[in-house]
Amino acid sequence: MEPLNIAVVGLGRMGKRHVHTLLYRVPRARVVAVCTTDSNEIQWAKNNEEYEEFGIKVYDNYDDMLAHPGLQAVWISTSTDVHASQSLAAISKGIHTLCEKPLSTDIAEAQSVVDAANQNPSVKVMAGFSRRFDASYRDAGDKVFQQQSIGVPFMVRSNTCDLRDETGFFVRYAARNGGIFVDCAIHDIDLSLWYLNNPVPKACWAAGTLQHHPELKDLSDVDNAVGVVEFWGGKIAYFYCSRTQAHGHDVCTEITGTNGKLMVNVIPTQNNVVLADELGMRHEVQPEYWQRFEDAFALEANEFVEAIVKNKELPLKLETGITVMKIGQALQQALLTGEVTRFDEKGERLD
Amino acid sequence: MEPLNIAVVGLGRMGKRHVHTLLYRVPRARVVAVCTTDSNEIQWAKNNEEYEEFGIKVYDNYDDMLAHPGLQAVWISTSTDVHASQSLAAISKGIHTLCEKPLSTDIAEAQSVVDAANQNPSVKVMAGFSRRFDASYRDAGDKVFQQQSIGVPFMVRSNTCDLRDETGFFVRYAARNGGIFVDCAIHDIDLSLWYLNNPVPKACWAAGTLQHHPELKDLSDVDNAVGVVEFWGGKIAYFYCSRTQAHGHDVCTEITGTNGKLMVNVIPTQNNVVLADELGMRHEVQPEYWQRFEDAFALEANEFVEAIVKNKELPLKLETGITVMKIGQALQQALLTGEVTRFDEKGERLD
Amino acid sequence: MEPLNIAVVGLGRMGKRHVHTLLYRVPRARVVAVCTTDSNEIQWAKNNEEYEEFGIKVYDNYDDMLAHPGLQAVWISTSTDVHASQSLAAISKGIHTLCEKPLSTDIAEAQSVVDAANQNPSVKVMAGFSRRFDASYRDAGDKVFQQQSIGVPFMVRSNTCDLRDETGFFVRYAARNGGIFVDCAIHDIDLSLWYLNNPVPKACWAAGTLQHHPELKDLSDVDNAVGVVEFWGGKIAYFYCSRTQAHGHDVCTEITGTNGKLMVNVIPTQNNVVLADELGMRHEVQPEYWQRFEDAFALEANEFVEAIVKNKELPLKLETGITVMKIGQALQQALLTGEVTRFDEKGERLD
Amino acid sequence: MEPLNIAVVGLGRMGKRHVHTLLYRVPRARVVAVCTTDSNEIQWAKNNEEYEEFGIKVYDNYDDMLAHPGLQAVWISTSTDVHASQSLAAISKGIHTLCEKPLSTDIAEAQSVVDAANQNPSVKVMAGFSRRFDASYRDAGDKVFQQQSIGVPFMVRSNTCDLRDETGFFVRYAARNGGIFVDCAIHDIDLSLWYLNNPVPKACWAAGTLQHHPELKDLSDVDNAVGVVEFWGGKIAYFYCSRTQAHGHDVCTEITGTNGKLMVNVIPTQNNVVLADELGMRHEVQPEYWQRFEDAFALEANEFVEAIVKNKELPLKLETGITVMKIGQALQQALLTGEVTRFDEKGERLD
Repeated sequence: MEPLNIAVVGLGRMGKRHVHTLLYRVPRARVVAVCTTDSNEIQWAKNNEEYEEFGIKVYDNYDDMLAHPGLQAVWISTSTDVHASQSLAAISKGIHTLCEKPLSTDIAEAQSVVDAANQNPSVKVMAGFSRRFDASYRDAGDKVFQQQSIGVPFMVRSNTCDLRDETGFFVRYAARNGGIFVDCAIHDIDLSLWYLNNPVPKACWAAGTLQHHPELKDLSDVDNAVGVVEFWGGKIAYFYCSRTQAHGHDVCTEITGTNGKLMVNVIPTQNNVVLADELGMRHEVQPEYWQRFEDAFALEANEFVEAIVKNKELPLKLETGITVMKIGQALQQALLTGEVTRFDEKGERLD
Repeated sequence: MEPLNIAVVGLGRMGKRHVHTLLYRVPRARVVAVCTTDSNEIQWAKNNEEYEEFGIKVYDNYDDMLAHPGLQAVWISTSTDVHASQSLAAISKGIHTLCEKPLSTDIAEAQSVVDAANQNPSVKVMAGFSRRFDASYRDAGDKVFQQQSIGVPFMVRSNTCDLRDETGFFVRYAARNGGIFVDCAIHDIDLSLWYLNNPVPKACWAAGTLQHHPELKDLSDVDNAVGVVEFWGGKIAYFYCSRTQAHGHDVCTEITGTNGKLMVNVIPTQNNVVLADELGMRHEVQPEYWQRFEDAFALEANEFVEAIVKNKELPLKLETGITVMKIGQALQQALLTGEVTRFDEKGERLD
Repeated sequence: MEPLNIAVVGLGRMGKRHVHTLLYRVPRARVVAVCTTDSNEIQWAKNNEEYEEFGIKVYDNYDDMLAHPGLQAVWISTSTDVHASQSLAAISKGIHTLCEKPLSTDIAEAQSVVDAANQNPSVKVMAGFSRRFDASYRDAGDKVFQQQSIGVPFMVRSNTCDLRDETGFFVRYAARNGGIFVDCAIHDIDLSLWYLNNPVPKACWAAGTLQHHPELKDLSDVDNAVGVVEFWGGKIAYFYCSRTQAHGHDVCTEITGTNGKLMVNVIPTQNNVVLADELGMRHEVQPEYWQRFEDAFALEANEFVEAIVKNKELPLKLETGITVMKIGQALQQALLTGEVTRFDEKGERLD
Repeated sequence: MEPLNIAVVGLGRMGKRHVHTLLYRVPRARVVAVCTTDSNEIQWAKNNEEYEEFGIKVYDNYDDMLAHPGLQAVWISTSTDVHASQSLAAISKGIHTLCEKPLSTDIAEAQSVVDAANQNPSVKVMAGFSRRFDASYRDAGDKVFQQQSIGVPFMVRSNTCDLRDETGFFVRYAARNGGIFVDCAIHDIDLSLWYLNNPVPKACWAAGTLQHHPELKDLSDVDNAVGVVEFWGGKIAYFYCSRTQAHGHDVCTEITGTNGKLMVNVIPTQNNVVLADELGMRHEVQPEYWQRFEDAFALEANEFVEAIVKNKELPLKLETGITVMKIGQALQQALLTGEVTRFDEKGERLD
């Protein structure tokens, strides 16, 4: 059986990691091309011995890359503003598409990708909600739905708290990411929909603050925020997102049910090492979501590739992302206005 | 030096414990009397060998008890609706008063106790915010204010989650407790004021659900609720209160600052024992706040008694409780109305 | 009921704490006297306001103190070399005696105290194996024997690792303590006898090293040592004792049975606070056994006093200490000789 | 660059996993063949769709497999008794060899492999001490040697405790594994040599017991054992090995130095999930060393393959295994005889 010919678009921090994942963890895929418009990244890729070793061609133009002979799939890891257009271009050429979340910060545009996917059922299109592939979150899902370890879940608390970034990378990237609840809380919102069994939002409120990045004020954004989502049917989710943690990437989720509670990663760790010295006992914390979710990305890529080469169903529905985005934007609006944003019983915004 | 003659009013679950604390942990106090109007409790106390051994007189009338020869202080541990009147009666007789929180669910009434205390400066009057005396919370306070371990604190998360009560005790008691945010979150609100250095509330919102106690609906209350308080100056606190935990009394607090985070009791434990067996590794959780805060109650009682016998300042200001109550009631109103409750920059409610 | 008149002998670090425990935690006892031959300690005690407040008389002569009017009990907290003689003197006067472990480093002398106690059944005599009164160790005991949570226990690992002492206190004290396995591991040996249900020793071996206190070489002692005890019947205990930990007082015990394992204090903590900052996540560790076992000492004192005033059986048998000492000395001999020390099936040393 | 053609010998539990690792985690290797003499395993492999998909040829004869066209390397994962002969056969044909530990239970035979490797410097020969490739153990190594976080290490405690095996697999396998200290503690011994910086053994003692597998008595083995190794120069290591844990695969290591302690995996976990319910809070434990060390095997395989294809030095010296084996056998002898086994200052056994 021949491996799947795949290309990675975007060679930022995550694009490079996706190439690595495909090379080292996904035997049924062969990375044939990468593409970036950033001249530094082009240079870096052209000088990369490993890329040469594995025969990866470097493109500086997305359309050219789509025309790479024998290309069967793309992994889109560019900035959010081109996710939708690049997905649509790939789909229209019959190229299977794994697109980083979110499909777009504009819901209509995101919906256009969903529509295109529905119209091309032979093309596999998936949005990269990587936490859905994490072993611990899957175990929590099994415990909730198969083992019913906690009765009926009714409350989710979920955090995405990034290590403080002093390099300026995050702030440069912030202008195009849709705001803290759209960019940072999107996985937490997705997890709450999963564990609460696809509830319909009823009302949201949020509060935020600027602690390290006053320059975000011009973008109408904050660097730390808390948001609450009330769902129809007595379910609740609440989130804390932060860009300014001192200790590492701190991502945890708690799911409370009628008979118990599941805690995922409430005490984050770098590895299994604890150091005992004059300061007491301490462990290091993973610096980025990559260290926390590296295995999840590998599983995601393998399941995406297998769905194609073995013509199986994709593990995630593309539509889920639309609801996630609606909630993210409602929280962001609540943050900016200080008012409650409300939805009707079908989940349509009431304004 | 003669010990302080003190009486405990109310012989419910906590009243009995306060007697125990005074007998076993407070050498400068002598429990001379207890008082309750509940006939079962009167009977229980009259048959109690330990009370007989230590010479504790049992009263069924509060005024009679206040007239006990040589009585110098009372610890009021009755239901909230009589806290204020009992405190006022004691203060008017020059009897030092330690009153369980809250002074009242009615702010004007609570203020009347504060006023009476201010008018009788020789009488020591304190409200029992017991967590202020907990070794871990005090250590967190030292780390925040003395050691400045986390920079400037700007965010507090605090939970008070009770073990599910199948006995009906909690529901009977619920009718008079002022609602989940007033009864259950009051310590969390107090902690947020402490660690955020007495911030002024700006806006609150809350969402709740009924999972185990549908009978609370008639009381306009819920059994699980999440609330967010935004303070003026970019500070935020958020709370989760629950009456329905399966695993124990789960009370934790996190304080996030510009340079770090403090976590208090994020993994609650009964003791130092872990059992490893076919189910993995597990530890038990304290069933009630008594096990979590028994030492804090002892320190509270000792510091209250010492303030009297050595004529020192009380460790807590009575006024703090008024702000705590205002926020609790605002959260409770947000819970019931679904609307944001707002305050002006002086902390006065805008309605 | 009148409280028990008790005196504390020895006002070193622990003697002072025992006075505190009796004053603050043991309502049925009244500290009427203390005794020390150390002039600094005498001065300190005479200037102590609390001792004056509670009416504690300071003696510099043990016999004078034994003659204190109305004295009913003593708590002996002197150096090990006078434990036995002071106990015998008290017993001979009919004074109830709580003696710090060990009764003596000489087994014959220790046995003489056991014999005296047996000949004076109306006098309560107990050796202070304080860990037997610790809530976690008792819970472990319940789980082993009542709940049978781990099947049949066959293996105990137990550590007593002290924080490094730079003050010289420990080294001064080392000359009279009988060696690291007699002084430091004695509680661990006692715990192994408890949880393994009074097994009979068969063979011991030990290895040690000097890392911080080369001056111990002259005392034929070490500052870190590992020892193994094989018992008849296929049971094993092994111990690590250290005088040189950087992080605190690290005392843990694991009990392995045929169906599970109990872990007591495997991750030691100072309190419930965790600090997350640039170094990761850390907690402090209790600096001394006092912080770890303060509550155990209070329970020990209360149970000792209750056994007297209510004429109940003592919670611990005095004889247990003899076997503990035999094993401690056998390990110490193995440490010095490098040879295995062996016992016959009755637990008598084979040399 | 063409990938390395490699074969896996032995298709037991671990052999199958090694094939998986090579397929999914090692892009520079291509599994061209597997070999087993077990008829069930042959059948299983011939029916394996994945093996067919990836073009893996199944051999039932080792010599035939060595003659597979283009074969460049083998991963020997058979039972210990044929490790040495299969390694020698591969080396003599110039085929790079990764051999599971130990090379042999007979030291002379193990030495013959070392000698053969030394005589064929162009052939890469490595013994699979997989823990040396584990991220946490490597981090501990960095902290010990690069960061010097704990001063000078002088004490290692290390456990290898297996989940109880009710299938009979372990007992069948026990006859050929050299005994509990040779089979089970070999990695712990290796770790102690690493962290104590290649110390020379001086004396060993051990004690063991039979709790679940009385049938091991005929093999002169036990199912739980404790061993102590004293090294020249005041360093000590001690080990606990068990075949009978109820809760999972419990492998931990502690390294104590003059200024601190490192703890590796002292609280083992299956993943990041904690379940809070009526039993308290619990987490599952990894059932086998595979789950604990899966990533380490992937790194080991990648570093072995890279050393070949990029002609770099192997990450581990083959000779280390000889010292490990000497200590394992000395502990095993101490276990059987009850006597101390001793070594001279060059590490030669004194008998």
